[in-house]
Amino acid sequence: MTDTTSPALRTALAYYQAWTGHELDKAMSYIADDIVCDAPVGRLEGADAYRGFMDPFVQILTGSKLIAAFGDDTTALIMYDTETVPVKSAPGAECVTVKDGKITYSRFVFDSAPFDAARNAAS
Amino acid sequence: MTDTTSPALRTALAYYQAWTGHELDKAMSYIADDIVCDAPVGRLEGADAYRGFMDPFVQILTGSKLIAAFGDDTTALIMYDTETVPVKSAPGAECVTVKDGKITYSRFVFDSAPFDAARNAAS
Repeated sequence: MTDTTSPALRTALAYYQAWTGHELDKAMSYIADDIVCDAPVGRLEGADAYRGFMDPFVQILTGSKLIAAFGDDTTALIMYDTETVPVKSAPGAECVTVKDGKITYSRFVFDSAPFDAARNAAS
Repeated sequence: MTDTTSPALRTALAYYQAWTGHELDKAMSYIADDIVCDAPVGRLEGADAYRGFMDPFVQILTGSKLIAAFGDDTTALIMYDTETVPVKSAPGAECVTVKDGKITYSRFVFDSAPFDAARNAAS
């Protein structure tokens, strides 16, 4: 499932290993300055906006497990489960476009409803 | 991105084409009787429960677009965007395990929050 002959997948997995290892600086080294990311919160443009989205998530992350990962020259698609402080199982999927070892576009899918519910319960 | 040498991907794509074409009976022909599906609504067990989950979604589906699709002998991972009556862009990802041409396990990720919001706004 992890075809490491795919250059895009190598980048996607290095990025995944970094952020799930709480190494956000290292993770951001795989993100293009002009990344565009379509996520449940809407479109994020630029590395600063992307980091602002990932940082709070990495802080509540307590575990992760790769479910599947595939890729070709320019595109990688991965799915994983995460465990977070408010939500015990929060699976996500990312389809990323990679150019020169950097993620230039990301389509990010996860269920934001359990996070909304946890936030509402806490407030 | 659509490596049709993968038997699992062939099944996953045939399934995807059927349900996005509103052919639910044909789609269900690719689903194992004892399918287990982990989705935002929780775990679904058996083809009847799975059909009960898909049927209302197919009824509100107005469009779909495959974003990426990969697979190997036993596993396929696809991501797509859907357009539905209440939610204009509802991307999803599925990681499926395929045995003898039937999907026996599915991990289903999508953002259920916009559907909850639409339901609340309508009630």
